[in-house]
Amino acid sequence: MSSLLEQLIEAFRILPGVGQKTAQRMAYHVLEREREGGRRLATALADAVERVGHCARCRDFSETEVCATCASAARDAHQLCVVESPADRLAIEQATGFRGLYYVLQGRLSPLDGIGPREIGLDRLAERLGEGEVQELIIATNPTVEGEATAQYLAQLARQHGTRPSRLAHGVPLGGELEYVDRGTLSHAFGSRSEMM
Amino acid sequence: MSSLLEQLIEAFRILPGVGQKTAQRMAYHVLEREREGGRRLATALADAVERVGHCARCRDFSETEVCATCASAARDAHQLCVVESPADRLAIEQATGFRGLYYVLQGRLSPLDGIGPREIGLDRLAERLGEGEVQELIIATNPTVEGEATAQYLAQLARQHGTRPSRLAHGVPLGGELEYVDRGTLSHAFGSRSEMM
Ligand SMILES: [Zn+2]
Ligand SMILES: [Zn+2]
Repeated sequence: MSSLLEQLIEAFRILPGVGQKTAQRMAYHVLEREREGGRRLATALADAVERVGHCARCRDFSETEVCATCASAARDAHQLCVVESPADRLAIEQATGFRGLYYVLQGRLSPLDGIGPREIGLDRLAERLGEGEVQELIIATNPTVEGEATAQYLAQLARQHGTRPSRLAHGVPLGGELEYVDRGTLSHAFGSRSEMM
Repeated sequence: MSSLLEQLIEAFRILPGVGQKTAQRMAYHVLEREREGGRRLATALADAVERVGHCARCRDFSETEVCATCASAARDAHQLCVVESPADRLAIEQATGFRGLYYVLQGRLSPLDGIGPREIGLDRLAERLGEGEVQELIIATNPTVEGEATAQYLAQLARQHGTRPSRLAHGVPLGGELEYVDRGTLSHAFGSRSEMM
């Protein structure tokens, strides 16, 4: 087997859920039938990895200083939805009719791993709440142990700034990852979020 | 959503079995956790698409004029295994202990689509048989209607050159694609191939 081909198969294995067999199939498929598409994918990958950074305001992926959502006058700045990752933000944006803004933690509190409030940007979130515009902080961290602990911390932070904290309704399966929840469940859970006491 | 990110998601969809949801997951995974791997994949893809061509002798993928298998003195030139695609060749190479050589058709006879003997390199295969070195032509085309028709044509071609044609044993499921057959079945079928009458 060609060594460039071996390298390509190996490289495909960085993708989630892609083992040796699938990586082989991808490499052969591209070389047999999709060389032009393969060229486009190579360019898109190189460009995205190089030029997609994070929005200065919400920390979601963005190739501009401030992302389109944060810059939009059509979004309601009174509601701020906090998620752990860009993928969770995308899941909520696609599943619900939410028209507020987001804040992406890029992680969750995990003291044992040395991940404290500052590491997930909670200092900047506190400043944001201090601006006084946010009335409801919708906490959409994952329903895992660490996600719940992060949610409790966020709720406390919200209350300190006179902001109402709310949490997605049960319906999101325990121990699951938001990103993999079907749209219907996620939409329902989002709609029936309850205020945090 | 960033437009470079949208382009990346779209580009991932050229891969086999990758729909919108999986493409999103791949793009987010790379940007969140695998930027270095993404860079490697971009380079590997661009290099492979540009520089992997076909072996002048067997038509398998190769980045050199003649592939390593064809160039190897350790392979038995008396046995030539004919397959439809590089992926089928790889499946046989990985599943069986075959030590002969291969010939990759890059297709199958399909008169209605204008694919005749010349389009799948049977003129060059005839020359190869004319050299007199091949004693057994192992026909491993897929067990589909067109694959079977191609097998019959190949068997006739072999006989014309005094070469013994053989066909993989039943065990490969009818209508299936070799590439997706599990190794055990494929190895068994390869081992019990029968001479074609
Ligand atoms: Zn933003
Ligand atoms: Zn070769």
